[in-house]
Amino acid sequence: MKVIAHPDKLNKALKGLKHRGANIGFVPTMGALHLGHLSLIKQAVRDNKIVVVSIFVNPAQFGPKEDLHKYPRPLKRDLALCKAAGVDLVFCPQQKSMYLPGFATYVEVNGMSNLLCGAARPGHFRAVATVVAKLLNIVRPDLLYLGQKDAQQAMIIKKMVRDLNFPVKVKVVPTVRQIDGLALSSRNAYLTSAEKIKALVLVKALLLAKSLIVHGQRDAGRIIRRMKELINKKQQVKIDYVAIVDLAELKPVKKINQPCLIALAVYIGKTRLIDNGIVNYV
Amino acid sequence: MKVIAHPDKLNKALKGLKHRGANIGFVPTMGALHLGHLSLIKQAVRDNKIVVVSIFVNPAQFGPKEDLHKYPRPLKRDLALCKAAGVDLVFCPQQKSMYLPGFATYVEVNGMSNLLCGAARPGHFRAVATVVAKLLNIVRPDLLYLGQKDAQQAMIIKKMVRDLNFPVKVKVVPTVRQIDGLALSSRNAYLTSAEKIKALVLVKALLLAKSLIVHGQRDAGRIIRRMKELINKKQQVKIDYVAIVDLAELKPVKKINQPCLIALAVYIGKTRLIDNGIVNYV
Repeated sequence: MKVIAHPDKLNKALKGLKHRGANIGFVPTMGALHLGHLSLIKQAVRDNKIVVVSIFVNPAQFGPKEDLHKYPRPLKRDLALCKAAGVDLVFCPQQKSMYLPGFATYVEVNGMSNLLCGAARPGHFRAVATVVAKLLNIVRPDLLYLGQKDAQQAMIIKKMVRDLNFPVKVKVVPTVRQIDGLALSSRNAYLTSAEKIKALVLVKALLLAKSLIVHGQRDAGRIIRRMKELINKKQQVKIDYVAIVDLAELKPVKKINQPCLIALAVYIGKTRLIDNGIVNYV
Repeated sequence: MKVIAHPDKLNKALKGLKHRGANIGFVPTMGALHLGHLSLIKQAVRDNKIVVVSIFVNPAQFGPKEDLHKYPRPLKRDLALCKAAGVDLVFCPQQKSMYLPGFATYVEVNGMSNLLCGAARPGHFRAVATVVAKLLNIVRPDLLYLGQKDAQQAMIIKKMVRDLNFPVKVKVVPTVRQIDGLALSSRNAYLTSAEKIKALVLVKALLLAKSLIVHGQRDAGRIIRRMKELINKKQQVKIDYVAIVDLAELKPVKKINQPCLIALAVYIGKTRLIDNGIVNYV
C-alpha cells in the first residue's frame, strides 16, 4: 500500500494504472475510520482492481464554532486499517497543498445545500461539494463510494456528479450500526458512556416513525411530532431538526405517499449526531 | 471526423482512445468559427493526436437582454472548417442534454468573476466556469486551448483548473486580428461597414496606451484617461470600461510597475466588443 501526500504525486501514480485500464474505486474520508468506512472500503475492494482512500480533515467544511481542532486524527491506526482491508493507495494531503494561496473556486449545489444539516451549518455543503470535486479530479475514479449515514451529503454529491458530468458512478453504501442500533460515526468518540445510551434516541425515533407508517400513519407532521415527543423526554438531548423529505430535492413532504427520507439531527450534550432512514414501503 | 451530439456518446467514443494513451486537445467554442478559433484548433492539431472541438451556444452565459437568439449559428460551415483543419471529433450538444431537469450545480470563481466584463454581465462567468467544468468532465482532455482575446475568461478558467485540480494543461493562444488591427470576434458579424471602421478605436486605444508606456508614462489613471478621450471622440461609441489590472487577480493597478492587462469593452452601436493587450515591457 502506498501513502501519498501530494496531489501531483497521486496523479502520477494513478496515470500509469489508468492507461492499463484498471478500474479505480475511491472512498473519500476524514479519517478516524470505523466499521462504516470499512464497509465502504470493502465494497470498493470487491468492485475494483485499484482502491484509493483519501484521509483529509477538510477545514473548509467546519463552521467557526465546530469541532475542527478536536476532530480525531488517529492516522497510524487508519493506515493499518486501510492496509488490512486491501487498499492500494492512501491519499492524505496537507491543507496547504489542497488550498493553494488565492484559492477562490467553489462548487455549489443550489437548493439542497441549505436544508436539513445545511441550515445549521451554512457553507458546509459548498465546502463538501468543492473538496469532493477536487478529489474526483485528482483521483479520477470510476466508482465513488459514499455512506448512507450522511444521506444529504450523498444526495448532494450525486447531484453534483450528474450536473457537472463527472465521469464516475456513485455507490451509496448502507449505514453500519452497533448491535444496539447506534449509527457508527467518528463523532461517537466524543460521547461519554451515559451519552452513548442517550444517543440511542436517534435510532429509536426512526424506528418509531417506521412503525407508525407500517401501522398506516401517512401524515408526516404527526409522525414528526411523535418523534420529537420521544426525543424531548430525554434530558440533555436537544433537537436540531426532525424532517421527512422527498428523495429528489429534500423538500418536506406532507403525506407519505412516495419513498422518502426521515432524517434527524440532535445534540447529545455538546455532540451533534445525525441519523436517517429511507421509507419505501408505502 | 465524427460529429457527436450526446455527452454519453462522446464519453464512449473517447474512452477507447484514452486507454490507448492518445493525447487529447480540446477547443471549446460557441461556433461561428473565424480565424481566431482556427488558430486555436491548428495549435491543438499540432500538439495532440486527437483534437475535440465543442460547438455549444451556452444559453446560461447570456444575460436576459443579450444576443442569445441572434448569435450566429452557421453549423454546416463550422463543421466544414473543423474537418479541413484536421479535427477528429466535434461535440455539438443540445441544451437539454447539457442541462438536465433540476440542474442546480454551479462553479464560481470568486473575486475575478465580478470585475471588468463580469460587472456588466452578472452571472456570465459563473455560467462560463460551469459549462467549461462540464465540458472538461465530458471530454477529459490533456490540453485545453483558450483565446487571449477573452483574457478574463482565460484567467478565470485557469484559476478554476488550478483550484479544482482539473487534470488538464491550459494553453492561451494569441488574439488573431484583421490586417487593420480589429480583433476577430463572432460578434463582428453584427457590425455594419461603417461600424467596422469605428470598431478600430479599440485597437487604437490599446496602441495609444502601449505607446504612452513605452514613452515612460507609468500612471495607470492618466493612461486610462487618454484612452477614454480617444474613444469618446467617436460618435455612436459608448465605453463600458477601460481598465489596467494585474495579471493575478484582475485588480486595478495604479502604477505600471508589473506586467499587467489593459482591457476595454465598448459598444459600437448596439454591439458590445472587447479587446485587450498584455504589457510586460516595464
